Amino acid sequence: MFEDRTKRTEISELGEFGLIDHLTKSIELSQESSQYGIGDDAAVINPDGKKVLISTDLLVEGIHFDLTYVPLKHLGYKAVVVNLSDIAAMNALPTQITVSIALSNRFSLEAVEELYEGIKLACKRYNVDLVGGDTTSSKSGLVISISVIGLANENDIVYRKGAKAGDILCVSGDLGAAYAGLLVLEREKSEFTANPEMQPQLDGLDYILERQLKPEARVDMMKIFKEAGVKPTSMMDVSDGLASEIKHLCKQSDLGCTVYEDKLPIDQQTWDTARSFDMDPTMMALNGGEDYELVYTISQDDYEKVKTVKQIIFVGYMTEASAGINLITKNNVSAPITAQGWDGLNKDRGRES
Amino acid sequence: MFEDRTKRTEISELGEFGLIDHLTKSIELSQESSQYGIGDDAAVINPDGKKVLISTDLLVEGIHFDLTYVPLKHLGYKAVVVNLSDIAAMNALPTQITVSIALSNRFSLEAVEELYEGIKLACKRYNVDLVGGDTTSSKSGLVISISVIGLANENDIVYRKGAKAGDILCVSGDLGAAYAGLLVLEREKSEFTANPEMQPQLDGLDYILERQLKPEARVDMMKIFKEAGVKPTSMMDVSDGLASEIKHLCKQSDLGCTVYEDKLPIDQQTWDTARSFDMDPTMMALNGGEDYELVYTISQDDYEKVKTVKQIIFVGYMTEASAGINLITKNNVSAPITAQGWDGLNKDRGRES
Repeated sequence: MFEDRTKRTEISELGEFGLIDHLTKSIELSQESSQYGIGDDAAVINPDGKKVLISTDLLVEGIHFDLTYVPLKHLGYKAVVVNLSDIAAMNALPTQITVSIALSNRFSLEAVEELYEGIKLACKRYNVDLVGGDTTSSKSGLVISISVIGLANENDIVYRKGAKAGDILCVSGDLGAAYAGLLVLEREKSEFTANPEMQPQLDGLDYILERQLKPEARVDMMKIFKEAGVKPTSMMDVSDGLASEIKHLCKQSDLGCTVYEDKLPIDQQTWDTARSFDMDPTMMALNGGEDYELVYTISQDDYEKVKTVKQIIFVGYMTEASAGINLITKNNVSAPITAQGWDGLNKDRGRES
Repeated sequence: MFEDRTKRTEISELGEFGLIDHLTKSIELSQESSQYGIGDDAAVINPDGKKVLISTDLLVEGIHFDLTYVPLKHLGYKAVVVNLSDIAAMNALPTQITVSIALSNRFSLEAVEELYEGIKLACKRYNVDLVGGDTTSSKSGLVISISVIGLANENDIVYRKGAKAGDILCVSGDLGAAYAGLLVLEREKSEFTANPEMQPQLDGLDYILERQLKPEARVDMMKIFKEAGVKPTSMMDVSDGLASEIKHLCKQSDLGCTVYEDKLPIDQQTWDTARSFDMDPTMMALNGGEDYELVYTISQDDYEKVKTVKQIIFVGYMTEASAGINLITKNNVSAPITAQGWDGLNKDRGRES
């Protein structure tokens, strides 16, 4: 009587070569360094005198994402962005990615197309070429593995190590919003499960939802540093949470760190959401992950160059290791920061080596 | 009364940072091009004027491997080798890999160590550096995602396209053995399932079992071609099966191909196993996958240079596309070859783009 308007094409109708052709036929190469993309045993990249950076991330359904509230297109976009962020964190330019996916037969061709739409959108937005990958079956959920290649001049690369005592600790944007967005999505999911008639209450929360569902990689910071005439002494991206990342920077540079609570940039929606969940906004900024902002250190000598740059936000300074890692609270009390972050296998979250 | 001699350490005891430290602490960099390995947001590679190749493979438990008969150490070794093979198939030298794994809590620390033992063994055997990766949880089985970087001089790279009509079609070694090994392992598994008292009957099958469980990548062929003073006109590795790979070479070079049945190299164990399963050894050589030999074309002009090189085995020649892809049987009958290969999503096997 009624047509099924939601088209569902089984992937087996195409076969796997057909699937790959279908998904990749519209892919064009735009990076000059992409010499050969999809279609051979390996892709070929021409680094032209630059150094080559590689990073990789594995995203597993039920661990890193929940398809009940994450649209596949957003998932594809985010999966690319989290990889690009790793290259941005080295002060390098992401240029190519490979994408491997494993999927069970509960995914239709249309579902995979949605996922690829997001992947392609991120590639276009960041001018990154999709040059290879692997598509396979899975007996359970969806697995997405992305590797990213970046290029940089030797002298531009910024490592996690390299900070000196006295360096200014900075972040590139506000923190805790992605975690606030996650809390809201999880609440809506559990309320919907309890009462499917329930309408989602997401008004006025668009910023934190976007930070969770469609984060951006701060590849723009490379240019901002260059324009300001500075190079960070150390840098990484905020994927696990600021506290956890600071601990890495301190460990690798053999330093301590002092962070000022009143300097942590927190968006009003994050603040309000923290309060509505009876949580401390500062703890959310310190320990919420997935912000994909950059955290980095700038030499005191460069203070004058960066003091008016709005994407270079001072939150503290590096100290001798013996001083430890501390938060100076708004009441001017010093308290040690413990990196709760999102602890990988304990909290069922992944973490990159 | 009895001590449990099989140690089982839960991964949660280490935490994820602890796990990564534990697994990677003994890893040293040996490639000159590995400028910075594990421990930052990305690894840094110095290509030093060479082109950079990247390929990636995703291996999923229950699809690509069955842990009831594949030891974890072998699995780790093979997972690396299949990637190296893709770089060898471009006539390039594999130099770095990244390894991402997702594992459920049924895997103990000791199990993961086994897997890494195999990964490290392959790295050592092939002088490849492990420079990064990702370790995460999974709600179901084991997933291994490996990306490999290779380096090559621009002029040395061999693509799948590039063959000309009249070129000699060659392979680097015998075919069908890995598939024969798989048949034996699957038979033993089903017999063991039916009767656990049963002793495995694997005598005299060591070669085909090794070809299945611990294949090698033909990275040595690059040197053999160089020493012979030839460069193949097209090349790829035999992962899905010769028939399927030939189809790729023909498609990408817009050619046809004639293969001689009596020239296909088949090991005696493969032959005997095919017969014991009532299968045609030629079909096994054409359609069995996972041999990881190279299939390539050599110009007729180079015939004199390669005719005595034992790793350069002639099996046929390229023709105009209109002639199709044919097998000349031992009875001198021409029959079209249909690429059965291992068809990815239909036969639950993966295939790389």
